[in-house]
Formats: sequence, C-alpha cells, structure tokens
Amino acid sequence: MAIRVTVWGENVHERTNQEVQEIYPEGMHTCIAQGLSEDAEIETQTAVLQDPEHGLSEEVLKNTDVLTWWGHCAHQDVSDEIVDRVQKRVWEGMGLLVLHSGHYSKIFKRLMGTTCSLTWREAGEKERVWVVNPTHPITQGIDRYFEVENSEMYGEPFIIPTPDESIFISWYEGGEVFRSGVTYRRGAGNVFYFSPGHESYPVYHNEKVQLVLKNAVKWAASDATWIDNCPNVPVEQAPEKIEIKGVSLHKPGEAGFK
Amino acid sequence: MAIRVTVWGENVHERTNQEVQEIYPEGMHTCIAQGLSEDAEIETQTAVLQDPEHGLSEEVLKNTDVLTWWGHCAHQDVSDEIVDRVQKRVWEGMGLLVLHSGHYSKIFKRLMGTTCSLTWREAGEKERVWVVNPTHPITQGIDRYFEVENSEMYGEPFIIPTPDESIFISWYEGGEVFRSGVTYRRGAGNVFYFSPGHESYPVYHNEKVQLVLKNAVKWAASDATWIDNCPNVPVEQAPEKIEIKGVSLHKPGEAGFK
Amino acid sequence: MAIRVTVWGENVHERTNQEVQEIYPEGMHTCIAQGLSEDAEIETQTAVLQDPEHGLSEEVLKNTDVLTWWGHCAHQDVSDEIVDRVQKRVWEGMGLLVLHSGHYSKIFKRLMGTTCSLTWREAGEKERVWVVNPTHPITQGIDRYFEVENSEMYGEPFIIPTPDESIFISWYEGGEVFRSGVTYRRGAGNVFYFSPGHESYPVYHNEKVQLVLKNAVKWAASDATWIDNCPNVPVEQAPEKIEIKGVSLHKPGEAGFK
Amino acid sequence: MAIRVTVWGENVHERTNQEVQEIYPEGMHTCIAQGLSEDAEIETQTAVLQDPEHGLSEEVLKNTDVLTWWGHCAHQDVSDEIVDRVQKRVWEGMGLLVLHSGHYSKIFKRLMGTTCSLTWREAGEKERVWVVNPTHPITQGIDRYFEVENSEMYGEPFIIPTPDESIFISWYEGGEVFRSGVTYRRGAGNVFYFSPGHESYPVYHNEKVQLVLKNAVKWAASDATWIDNCPNVPVEQAPEKIEIKGVSLHKPGEAGFK
Repeated sequence: MAIRVTVWGENVHERTNQEVQEIYPEGMHTCIAQGLSEDAEIETQTAVLQDPEHGLSEEVLKNTDVLTWWGHCAHQDVSDEIVDRVQKRVWEGMGLLVLHSGHYSKIFKRLMGTTCSLTWREAGEKERVWVVNPTHPITQGIDRYFEVENSEMYGEPFIIPTPDESIFISWYEGGEVFRSGVTYRRGAGNVFYFSPGHESYPVYHNEKVQLVLKNAVKWAASDATWIDNCPNVPVEQAPEKIEIKGVSLHKPGEAGFK
Repeated sequence: MAIRVTVWGENVHERTNQEVQEIYPEGMHTCIAQGLSEDAEIETQTAVLQDPEHGLSEEVLKNTDVLTWWGHCAHQDVSDEIVDRVQKRVWEGMGLLVLHSGHYSKIFKRLMGTTCSLTWREAGEKERVWVVNPTHPITQGIDRYFEVENSEMYGEPFIIPTPDESIFISWYEGGEVFRSGVTYRRGAGNVFYFSPGHESYPVYHNEKVQLVLKNAVKWAASDATWIDNCPNVPVEQAPEKIEIKGVSLHKPGEAGFK
Repeated sequence: MAIRVTVWGENVHERTNQEVQEIYPEGMHTCIAQGLSEDAEIETQTAVLQDPEHGLSEEVLKNTDVLTWWGHCAHQDVSDEIVDRVQKRVWEGMGLLVLHSGHYSKIFKRLMGTTCSLTWREAGEKERVWVVNPTHPITQGIDRYFEVENSEMYGEPFIIPTPDESIFISWYEGGEVFRSGVTYRRGAGNVFYFSPGHESYPVYHNEKVQLVLKNAVKWAASDATWIDNCPNVPVEQAPEKIEIKGVSLHKPGEAGFK
Repeated sequence: MAIRVTVWGENVHERTNQEVQEIYPEGMHTCIAQGLSEDAEIETQTAVLQDPEHGLSEEVLKNTDVLTWWGHCAHQDVSDEIVDRVQKRVWEGMGLLVLHSGHYSKIFKRLMGTTCSLTWREAGEKERVWVVNPTHPITQGIDRYFEVENSEMYGEPFIIPTPDESIFISWYEGGEVFRSGVTYRRGAGNVFYFSPGHESYPVYHNEKVQLVLKNAVKWAASDATWIDNCPNVPVEQAPEKIEIKGVSLHKPGEAGFK
C-alpha cells in the first residue's frame, strides 16, 4: 500500500511575490508534491493555509501517513486548534517533515519545546549539504554531499534539543555551518527537520532535495499507532497482588487529573 | 553566592483535603522549601497558584536560579501567560525541577513536546528508587537505592522524548517500573523530572527525597544565560566575503518572520 | 529476500551441565534458531565457539545480515581476531543482537566502550519485562509487558553509554530493576541488547522472548553498507578551490597515520 | 584544590620534523600544559610516549583528574596494557580530552566502539569553529565562533556514536564541515573530543584553543569515583524476600563469569 503524504503549504509568497510565483507558479506545495509523486510508493495530496481548517480536517489527518510542513510569513495565522490536531496525530504515529522556515512554525516549536532560533542571511549564497550519517535511510542515493546553488543561510546556534540522529550538516559560502537535517521521535511519530527550501530560489526543483524528501517520507512512515491516554491500573489488576495502604485521593474508577 | 530557588506549589489539596493537610499543614511547597533550606548553599522562597501572577512575576523569575514545580488537580488553572514566562526563563538558563504529578503540568508538556502520559495507581504501595547513574551529581549520597514506603505508582510507558540522561528507575510493589528520574536540556535550562511525591503520603518528609532535591538544585543551577533571538547576519558581516545573488524577500535590516 | 541470521552460541553449559542439557538438548543456539525460523522472512544458520574460526569465517559473516550472540563462561576463549572480524562487519552494517550474559562478551564491551557491569542473582525469580517504547518495531505484538517465570536477576546500575533508544525495563520479584532492552548504532550496524536468557531456565522457549527476537532481527537488518576508510581529499579535489598554505607532513597521495 | 591535569604527548614529530620543532621547541605537550597552567585552578604535568610506561604509571593516573591525549603517527606504539589502564581510570571518573589526530588513538577508538574515521586534507586552510551550544561550560568566553588560520581539514562523515552533546561544528575554506567538539560519558568519566590541533601549524598557541581546553578541563573534572565490579546480590540480601527456585549454575559466594 502506498504511503499517503499530505503536503501542507502556507501558500502566501507564491501568490503575493512575483519572483516566487515565477519559480513556483502552482505553489511550492504543488512542486513538493510532484517531486514526491515520482516515487511509485508515495501518494500525495496538498493542503494550504487558506483551505477550510487549513485543509487539515480530522478526516484528512486520519488518512495521512506523513505530513510535510512549509510555512514562513504566516505562522501566526495557523489556528491553535489545527496545531493541536496535527500534534495529536504525530503522537499517534503520523510522520512529520518540517521544512526550512518551518523551524519557526507552531507545530515544530511545540514538538521541540525550545525556541528553535538560528541565525540567517538571505544572499543567494551556495549551500553544500554534507552527509553525516551515510547509511541512514534518509541519505541513500546521496553521495558525500550535494549543493544548493542559491540558498538562504541558516546558521548555528540552532536552539533545538539534542537530536536523536544527525543526518546532514551544511556549509555556506558566507562562512557559517548548520545542522540541516536532524531527526526526533515524539510519541509514536517520527519527525525530520530539513533546512534547505527558501522560497525565492528554486530549491524544491533540485533533484537531490527531492530525493531527500522521498527518502524521508519512507523513513517517517510507520505502521505503529498509539492512542495515548493515562490509564489507571486498579489495585485488583496490579500485576502483583497488593492491598491498598494509606489515604486515597481518587475514588475507584475515577480518571486522573490532567 | 547562594542558589536562589523558588518552590512553586499548586496548594489546593493541602487546603481542601484533611489528610493532605495533616501531612503538610503549611503546604507541600513549605515542606519542600524547608528541606532545601537545610543546605547552606541554597536560599528558598515559595510561590503558589493563588498568589497574584501565581507568585511568578517577571521580577521573581528574574531572580530565580532554579524553580521547582508541583501541581496536580489544577494544571488548567495556571495561566498560559505565566507558563510562557516560565518557559522563556528556562530557555534563558533557569533550572527547572518538575515533581511527581507535574508530568502533566503545562510547562512540562511544553518543554517535552509529548503527551507525558503514564499509567498510575494510588494504593500506597512501596516504591524502591534505583540509582541508574551512580556518579551523577544528582545521585551523590544515595546508595544503590532508597525506598518510599507509601507511594502512588507511576508506570511505563512514560511518553517522553529520549532523556539526555537516565538517573533513577523505580520498582513498585504492585509489579510496575518507571523512569523516575530523567534530565533534559531545553535552551540554556537544565530540566530534571523526579516522580516520587504524591500528596497523600509524606514523601517530601523523606530524607533521601530531600537529598535528591538538594542535589538536583545544584545540578540544575547554571551561570550561563542566553537571551534568545534570531539574528540576521547582513551580507557585509558574513565571515567570508560574499555578494548578494538572486532575489531577496527581506529588505536590509528587516526582522525575520516569526 | 529473506534476512540471513547467524545464531552464535558458546555451547559450553549445554554440553557440561545436565540441567542445561535437559532444557536445550541441541544447544541454546539451536533453540534460538528454531524460534527465529518460524518467521518466513528469516533464514537461520548456527555457529558455535568450538567450530573452526568459531564458525564465523569471513565468508559466513559476509553472508550474515544479523548475528545473535550468546556467551557466558567462555568469553575469554573467543579469539580477538574473530572479534575484530565481527566488529568490522557490524561497522559495515551487519545487525547484532547481544543476549543475556553477552553483556560481558568481548564484542559487546568493545562496541560500548564501557565495563558493561551490572548486579546479578541466580534465584529463579520472576522477571516482568515492561514495554517502554510501545510503537517501536521491536515491541510489536507485545502487550504492556510479558513475564519470564524463572529468571536470573540482572540489576542496575548497568554501566553502558546512554542508549539511543530504550525498549524494555524489567521488574524482578527480588526487588531490582534493569534496562533489559536497549539499542545502539555503531558505524552502519544496528545493535540490540536484550537481557532475558539465563541458561538454567527455559527462557528461549518463551513465545514472547521468541517474538522479541524475531522483531529485533527485522529491526536490525539493513540494506545499507559502508566500507569504512579514512580518505584523503587532495587539494585539487576540495569542493572549494584552495591553494596549499604552510607546511605539509604528508606527501601527496600518502595515506594517513592509523 | 586544583584540578590535576596530565598532558600526554606522542612527542615524535616534535623531535623528527624541523618545522614542527620550530613551532613547538619543547614539544606540543609542553605548550598545551603551559596554556592550561595559566589558569590558577589547574595544575599540570606532562607525560610522553618515550617515558617508562609512557609516563602513565598507576600512581600518575591515580593522581590525575583529567588526562589530555595527543598522538598521531605512533598510535600503534602505545602499549595495550597502558591503554587498559587509562580506560579503567576513565571508567572510574578521570576526565579525558582527546585532541585532533587522537581520533585514531587506541583509547578513543576503544571508548567509542566505532572506527572514528573521517576525511582529511593537509592544506593549511582556514577553519572556523562555530559554537553550537552557547551556554555549555566548554564554550564560555567564546563568541559565536573562532578561527584557526591554518588548519588540517577533518571532514564528515565522522564515524562516532551519537554524541551526548554537540559543542562545536567547523567550517573549512576548502568546503567541508566537521563536528569538531563533542562530549560523551563512559562509566564515570567525561570525555571531550576536540579536533583542532595539527602539529605543522601553531594551533595550540591560539588563545581561543587554549581557552576551550581550560574550559574543557573544568567540565571534565569530577569528584565522583566509581570502582566498577559486577556484584552478586545473594538471595538473603535481595531487597524483597524471595526463595531460590530452579537450578543454580553458580555456587553461593562464587564470582560471575567475565
């Protein structure tokens, strides 16, 4: 069965900025989805900020194995309710690829618990993306490195938790470095952050970037699901026979405080 | 200079439940603060939910090196604005000890990015807290284990990110296990979660628990501070000389999108 | 294509101790291999200490996707040369499952870099193995826990590096706890340590233990391979054009020091 | 009480290569020790390969809080027995700073369990060392980055286990990147690998490099010690009362197999 990917796009600069429009006439989300769709194992649909519920209804998310997230100037326009919903689905096992300026998206900051800040410069300089983990599924088919001819510089310090795995580190013409590919597990969900992807350059037309995204989708997809609750284990169901001692705040069968 | 600790307490069950009141006549926060104050290097003050701004004004937090957090039935009564403030101070370098039912506090869930759920049983059973990391600063003075005679069971799976360090694992009379002491770094802040501490048993009167808290305060305190922003590095300040190529979305001197 | 597993056994107590022989008349390795072979995706062969080259010739290892390792009283009889060979294959991408007393095997200690010590007691007590990571591939099909009716106690502190992932934690009747399932990556190889498996009890006849091993084999197998060297990148092949400055110790084309 | 540092040097190229001799007339170890000694909290002595027992007698190591290790062309001349001794002391709590080409030293490879390979180029190019972790003790006093004017390039992939903490990442003039500062815990010992330090350039005369080493010494030093054994816990000393069930391979009081 194909991996069902929903490509989410903020879809603002593509409509308001002529240069971005020329690079992505149908929106960045469409370009990203087309790249992924070349792989027979991947099935894509797109959703944008302007859609009802930002295109991320309960139904859509329920049928999404991996969500990709690109946003930049409108992070604050994403409703908290939808972010709650996305986060819950990640916890249940949906994979999530957070792209470029998505480092400042509500969903990424929530999953990381840090500011996710970095340094930046928009000068169209060269970025060379180095493979740190040459046998990781996400780097298969990539040689020692690949280049993004024009890129926005994202530099260290990148204020994130210690990554579970380091995948890529980038070198910039202007002299900086950046942890450009890192993975995390949050609940049952696999999360991959990948930094190339500034909207004023044709980064998602780059074949290597497309390959990384395909690999990452396959890595992030998981059969496992986990509906998270916080179950009480009554005394009579304790694995070892015990008897209640001391005072109880909770009445039998009562749910815990949340 | 002494480490300045603010002991925060929800302070609800101590006032509404007679048994809890008998164990903690002046509130759990007072008991925790007294335990810490026995150490000459530690200076404490307390703050409770019912105080204006929950006792956590900008001024108080600015002068707090380590905050301890105990809450249970009123997590939802903690204002989001104060949680924002606490989280910002953790990012800047304030240490944070999250205690027992604080696993479900807003601040802990935000810093972890997961549900922080677990299994539980309130049966007053014995908990044996094992040292996993015998040379970690937090376990100094503790032998191979210590016991909490009556404890609420908290059991695996505990849905948290992979800890930076594992400090304690607990054994329960009823048959469960739990990662009862784990550390994280979030921004510049050291975070320690420690599970013993149910309000209907005199856990914070336990000398070993008090020792762990003293050790943890010293471990979490840090001289380093970090005011987090997301600085633009203008082209003319790039470490390597470069010239702008391609299109720019941002005007010189403009702040980034957040 | 099936996953090719080589089940390695020390094969000493099975031949010298009557009780062990009764439990494993054909050796523990045979029992482990039979359990794995029930899975159509897995193909097994066995190798023992007493075989020439301990049954682990270059050819055998080259054709092994995942190696399982059980040893106890004869760790010192395993030749360093064969351990070198196994370690090299792990680095290249062969998966490795280290079982029970294998915590003290040469190969495990080498891959960890720590003493791998623990506490222990041979009393046939009950072990309850708790799932810490309920959506990890290794725990699929296991409920919240499973039990090993008679087990050797292995207790904390277990002196290992911080695991990449925590999979299981065990509870013992006698009062201890243990990180009984942990994963690591070493080079391109996936490593899983799993503690149940004392030879004087029929642990490898336990269906849940067998399921864990099947899951772990599938998790550890990898298509990626990596032949590790330490390549010089000559100046004329540097990604950016540079010219040699300063003194050179190495002549062009010379290999580095090892 | 001062931190007692032993600076270990291979001391070969300083005696056999004229250019290295001019940079380090008294040997690299002397230069490193002098830099550290500027700090009143640090007390240094040196030891070299050519000394009896490589200068690392039981007595010397016993009185060493932190050992620094620089070697390059003579890794194989370090006796395994002395490496055993050093590794044991790390496990007991001695800090270890592994410098530059020490990535291929016996002690570092043993503590990591991986090949520790990398890519390299000796062209005297500029290295810019970026701070990844701006509030870590090791980076205090360093701004966003510092530069090493002439450096040997060490490039990714660096085949090491996932670091406990990432401290520095380097940018090279020739286009590569490298994780130039990483930390690990092995037993009770804190380990820091720091890559700048090629012998044909005056890297250890660089004030920022000297500052990093001072910081790292303070970070690595620890009061905690741990004598590692693998204790049997007899049945009568089990925390919970149990009785022996099943067969026992070990006689009471017998040591475990190693």
